[in-house]
Amino acid sequence: MKLAIDAMGGDHAPQEIVKGAIQAAKTYSDLKITLVGDQTKIEPMLNSHPQFEILHTTEKIEATDSPVKAVRKKKDASMVLAIHAVKEGRADAAISAGNTGALMAAGLFGVGRIKGIDRPALAPTFPTVKKNEGFLFLDVGSNMDAKPEHLLQYAIMGSIYTEKVLNKPKPRIGLLNVGEEPGKGNELSKAAYSLLKDAPLNFVGNVESRELLQGAADVVVCDGFSGNLVLKAIEGSAMSFFSLIKEELTSSFFSKVLAGLLYPKLKGIKNTMDYAAYGGACLFGLAAPVIKAHGSSNAHATYTTIQQARLLVEKNVVNTIEETILEKRDQWAK
Amino acid sequence: MKLAIDAMGGDHAPQEIVKGAIQAAKTYSDLKITLVGDQTKIEPMLNSHPQFEILHTTEKIEATDSPVKAVRKKKDASMVLAIHAVKEGRADAAISAGNTGALMAAGLFGVGRIKGIDRPALAPTFPTVKKNEGFLFLDVGSNMDAKPEHLLQYAIMGSIYTEKVLNKPKPRIGLLNVGEEPGKGNELSKAAYSLLKDAPLNFVGNVESRELLQGAADVVVCDGFSGNLVLKAIEGSAMSFFSLIKEELTSSFFSKVLAGLLYPKLKGIKNTMDYAAYGGACLFGLAAPVIKAHGSSNAHATYTTIQQARLLVEKNVVNTIEETILEKRDQWAK
Repeated sequence: MKLAIDAMGGDHAPQEIVKGAIQAAKTYSDLKITLVGDQTKIEPMLNSHPQFEILHTTEKIEATDSPVKAVRKKKDASMVLAIHAVKEGRADAAISAGNTGALMAAGLFGVGRIKGIDRPALAPTFPTVKKNEGFLFLDVGSNMDAKPEHLLQYAIMGSIYTEKVLNKPKPRIGLLNVGEEPGKGNELSKAAYSLLKDAPLNFVGNVESRELLQGAADVVVCDGFSGNLVLKAIEGSAMSFFSLIKEELTSSFFSKVLAGLLYPKLKGIKNTMDYAAYGGACLFGLAAPVIKAHGSSNAHATYTTIQQARLLVEKNVVNTIEETILEKRDQWAK
Repeated sequence: MKLAIDAMGGDHAPQEIVKGAIQAAKTYSDLKITLVGDQTKIEPMLNSHPQFEILHTTEKIEATDSPVKAVRKKKDASMVLAIHAVKEGRADAAISAGNTGALMAAGLFGVGRIKGIDRPALAPTFPTVKKNEGFLFLDVGSNMDAKPEHLLQYAIMGSIYTEKVLNKPKPRIGLLNVGEEPGKGNELSKAAYSLLKDAPLNFVGNVESRELLQGAADVVVCDGFSGNLVLKAIEGSAMSFFSLIKEELTSSFFSKVLAGLLYPKLKGIKNTMDYAAYGGACLFGLAAPVIKAHGSSNAHATYTTIQQARLLVEKNVVNTIEETILEKRDQWAK
């Protein structure tokens, strides 16, 4: 198993990325990792570790770079070279915590799309209130103006991933919508509903954004605009609530003492809702496994993202998607 | 000042609705209220209060009724009669905590649209983390497939309301979007951005759903599908976090004791985020003031919604919207 990892992407690169990779190499002795990035920074941390090699580059795509332009211009950027390693068969999968749009663009230019998938989707696993459970949420920002067929393709890809990688048989597929009843929603969601209910999937109907954290479905599909809004609304709410709680609890000495005793509990909640623990976001629809690790990835998040990449490769998810789509295409496509 | 209030709508009708109305009548001696609903239930609570009259009906639109059908069929439903009272000049504004879609349909059939407004919008005031502040959020579910011009109209209506009723000069208008930079988003939001930046409004650009609770803008406009998803995502997050906190805090005897001491603090947070305190959702674009009170309205929420209705009437919001739209129409419309 060979992975290409962009060592320069994300808020804590390269230190935390390299640390997480070293942990993973310790766990999985069959793992070979190519770290792509600045050799002078990476090498001292590796101590000529036998499972690692470095692909040196000093070029890097910034979080603020315009994705398509950056990928076209910065041909030696660390994430671009990581994708190339996959394209040329020197790695089985690529991981980056860098600019999401640029990673998607690099993936599209580099490895291309799975035949039969019109648009790739960005698919993080999002936590629910039940510990160690979560749901796959796609698309959360790759394809802004999705068509009904795209949502059907997301459902198929999500279903295969959830069954194979997350080990959930017959995953419940939900359509993000403004009401539970069929017939609710905008033109897109109404048309997508019709396609989904006729597809050989375990479609459980519409799910409201209010029910997502309660685990209303295992896979929730929507257009990238809606998904991104909802994802960030939940993130923003979490941030706001924790800051409000902190403020209220530390507003007097008395409650400051209590707060000290209760922080471990609150931290437990924060951990439940910590989506770094659920790995990165897959770029489903690309013709090879590419994972976007969270921008704030620490060593642990890097480690779980590597585990996820391993499973994607081992379970042959990309090929299964391609075979399923080709097989069922005529039956499903409009 | 005369208000028509649907006494039968919402989870706590008629008791809490009537209680809230009685409180408001006590505060505002010029207020005359027509309560529409079941006389046998309402009368005993009123004790022939001189500021009240009852418009008796036993017909009611249920939360589960299909809006348009229900309004067409149940011609004597309490909310329909409340709207008619406004249409016929027997009341200056109507309030209902009942079925939102039906209230919108009753409003459209009954009082119609403001000239120049293509689609009415549902516009609640949403709390932010700063106490006693909030932002106007529209549309959150009336118009699922909005056009760019609709979003411009929402911005104009929201700006006028926020300036006149909420007393904020030059309200900051934001466009709900997936990124702050111009050029982000789907086709709708890109086109709406172009219209908004050229309008004589205090347009502050795109705002992300992550920033809403931090008070990123005073008025946030979007299509009804996106608005509804984001609204419910925030509601659902709040619910989930409070239930997680409760669960964690009461999971052992030790922390149960601490939790008892800390509950008042947590309640303070819940109150900050309590949007019933911010009044109901205006149905902007209807040719008369109509307010949807929250479905779970208690007496206090009913009271604040009545205050809001008073301001809508006193500040002549509907006429100002109409005049502004007609005056600027040629300049703004595409």
